[in-house]
Amino acid sequence: MDEFSDDFRAGLHDLMRWRRDVRHFSTDPVDAALLKQCLDTFSLAPSVGLSEPWRILRVRSSQSKAAAIRNFMETNAKALDGYTGDQAKLYASLKLSGMNDAPEHLAVYCDDSTDKGAGLGAASMPEMRRYSVVGAVTLMWLTARALGLGVGWVSVLDPKRLNADLEIPDGWTLVAYLCVGWPAKNTLTPELETKGWEVRAPALHIESR
Amino acid sequence: MDEFSDDFRAGLHDLMRWRRDVRHFSTDPVDAALLKQCLDTFSLAPSVGLSEPWRILRVRSSQSKAAAIRNFMETNAKALDGYTGDQAKLYASLKLSGMNDAPEHLAVYCDDSTDKGAGLGAASMPEMRRYSVVGAVTLMWLTARALGLGVGWVSVLDPKRLNADLEIPDGWTLVAYLCVGWPAKNTLTPELETKGWEVRAPALHIESR
Repeated sequence: MDEFSDDFRAGLHDLMRWRRDVRHFSTDPVDAALLKQCLDTFSLAPSVGLSEPWRILRVRSSQSKAAAIRNFMETNAKALDGYTGDQAKLYASLKLSGMNDAPEHLAVYCDDSTDKGAGLGAASMPEMRRYSVVGAVTLMWLTARALGLGVGWVSVLDPKRLNADLEIPDGWTLVAYLCVGWPAKNTLTPELETKGWEVRAPALHIESR
Repeated sequence: MDEFSDDFRAGLHDLMRWRRDVRHFSTDPVDAALLKQCLDTFSLAPSVGLSEPWRILRVRSSQSKAAAIRNFMETNAKALDGYTGDQAKLYASLKLSGMNDAPEHLAVYCDDSTDKGAGLGAASMPEMRRYSVVGAVTLMWLTARALGLGVGWVSVLDPKRLNADLEIPDGWTLVAYLCVGWPAKNTLTPELETKGWEVRAPALHIESR
């Protein structure tokens, strides 16, 4: 068995502290080999029944990118309608996506209809396939961060419309729309905290049964 | 900005290769301080809108543990009914949970009704709250593994019944039932591959749009 040093564990803790959602990117391109290193993480990720249900699209054409950005802008305008007064003003001031600057866009899907794994572990909790994709994205996020890259997860999107615009096969579910690039700034504090939207809970509450 | 060394990145890659789902545990107890170190990872995890929707239960009483184990056994018997012939025989031979031996059981829930974060980022994709919980579990898994501990994610469960048995509040969704303990053996190869259930895909297929 491999053993890990105190130094390594301290580095891992640092990495997790640093791995904030990035929304401010420089427009500098990401080297293809670095992007590949990030994406290769998917092949290390565990998945329910070894189903490996992740499906990855690089959103590259200007038409596809424009459709995704338009999707974000309209979905964000609709979300703003859900707030009033000072909260609406604050919401409108937040930068919730780095899509305009990030050089790489990835749309990560789950193939809920995959035969791989023959359904093992997903009969009573079929959502486990999508959770496997989220776990793999989380590992990729850490790999990217360890390389100095930033990743921003955009969830202010209408998945149905994105699927139509990107011509996604039936049976695939959007799990994550990711912006990847070089962060324009680095901070330990989540931006939503800096801007006064929400604070971190002071302590983790654990119950027993 | 913090920078990470080649050595650290190599260690991270090793950690991800090792972090296999563990189903064979020794019954040795896990020191409370070590378990706390694992659980503290949740407070480092990002979450949609800073909603921090994770709710963690330590399943400790013999009554609760027995209910969860019974739940697994009956759900697993039902899952077996979905296979026939050799596949059924193989399925029946697989060890799909380490619940009997693992000293620590954690039931990780998502509070879908939380006000924290005021719904930011979750209006068009409310599943983002549960995905945030999965991301946090993934980080905890890595922390545990770096400490030499193993984690097994049990998904062969009927969540409705578990919620009733553990008296879970309305609005909480089961995301992960985790066994935590000292692995009885370590391997780089997923057990489902060793046993001939499924193999890893040879390469990651990436499409462009």
